[in-house]
Amino acid sequence: MLFFTQCFGAVLDLIHLRFQHYKAKRVFSAAGQLVCVVNPTHSLKYAPTRSAAAQASTEQGILPPCHHHEAVHDPQLVPCTCPLFSCPWEGHLEVVVSHLRQTHRINILQGAEIVFLATDMHLPAPTDWIIMHSCLGHQFLLLLRKQEKYEGHPQFFATMMLIGTPTQANNFTYRLELNRNQRRLKWEATPRSILECVDSVISDGDCLVLNTSLAQLFSDNGSLAIGIAITTSKVHSSEAEI
Amino acid sequence: MLFFTQCFGAVLDLIHLRFQHYKAKRVFSAAGQLVCVVNPTHSLKYAPTRSAAAQASTEQGILPPCHHHEAVHDPQLVPCTCPLFSCPWEGHLEVVVSHLRQTHRINILQGAEIVFLATDMHLPAPTDWIIMHSCLGHQFLLLLRKQEKYEGHPQFFATMMLIGTPTQANNFTYRLELNRNQRRLKWEATPRSILECVDSVISDGDCLVLNTSLAQLFSDNGSLAIGIAITTSKVHSSEAEI
Repeated sequence: MLFFTQCFGAVLDLIHLRFQHYKAKRVFSAAGQLVCVVNPTHSLKYAPTRSAAAQASTEQGILPPCHHHEAVHDPQLVPCTCPLFSCPWEGHLEVVVSHLRQTHRINILQGAEIVFLATDMHLPAPTDWIIMHSCLGHQFLLLLRKQEKYEGHPQFFATMMLIGTPTQANNFTYRLELNRNQRRLKWEATPRSILECVDSVISDGDCLVLNTSLAQLFSDNGSLAIGIAITTSKVHSSEAEI
Repeated sequence: MLFFTQCFGAVLDLIHLRFQHYKAKRVFSAAGQLVCVVNPTHSLKYAPTRSAAAQASTEQGILPPCHHHEAVHDPQLVPCTCPLFSCPWEGHLEVVVSHLRQTHRINILQGAEIVFLATDMHLPAPTDWIIMHSCLGHQFLLLLRKQEKYEGHPQFFATMMLIGTPTQANNFTYRLELNRNQRRLKWEATPRSILECVDSVISDGDCLVLNTSLAQLFSDNGSLAIGIAITTSKVHSSEAEI
């Protein structure tokens, strides 16, 4: 009996997922766009009441966010750039993507234009929605964060970062687009490098910022569809650094 | 001596104005765009500590914002729609523009695409920047408001309203665009009718919303340049209502 109940639940989940794909495709009607359903992750780094485990991990010497760099002794090694967790991992820039995929189970998507469909927007802050995006020969990290910068007033922050150096990042432009109900909001900027701190990008407000009311206007049944496009802002971007 | 000092001050003001025009033109490089320098007006309606004069005016029977309509006995008459002041005037929709120009000294500009250059963005909330915009045979009211929706955290809200009926407003799309320093933010929507309450549009957040940090990123020397474009969203818009 329990087996049948679980099977029925799994089928329902699949129908729900299919329905969400359909909705996102309806919002962004351009042909050939990949829709990616992104489920939220409760951010452990910004929990207002720190858990015993988090407290213990700090005591064991894991550094708080944005102070990773102080612990890097080999200048060729970079710390884990996952914005979700305080992670003691460090490695070369080339293996950051495989670390994020394997250890933090962050999905990676291909395509110049994709739709990021964040579900369960109503969940309380702090919450993160995160994917990697492979495009134009590089990998990008897309983060949507719900955070209470001012207590009691959660806001949504969306940004894209290149898993590469700041010089490489300067060669790209990313665009985030919300489009629903005769309203359109577009944010275009140069991605930051993953070597910069994602937390400071958000605290500086140098990203797409949405009030809860605006997020609700663009949401459909608790999900927010963000159209993403990446273009090169310079010709021969890869040669520029050589 | 005082005369020369005043003359010198006036010349300096002219140079400053010319410099601001130049800056806005540099930001929005499209040829033929009209740049309008808009100075702030301290909003009397939303002053946190109400002045004795404002208190007295309420006692004399002038209604608070958004409750104008209750006082209109003739359904063909509309109340004053100026968002700056609680004004007891009422008249036909056709004479709202001349009332706003003559009584509230709001400038009117011609052209499908203009640049609204709001000065002195640092001034404390509540502050309004307002102009009228004549385009495609209709007049629009553009409002930029600095307001503390949450105490101690001022935000900027920008919206465009048609001086006409809601049915007429549905025939248009307006676009507000910020563009500076390799960043671009675009908001597109259907304008609301001036018969709806501008205060509720802002409190609903159904407009372009900027945090102070984002406003600073797009500002140049304390001035914010907003590119404005209006297009018709339907063919034969004027006939649709006949």
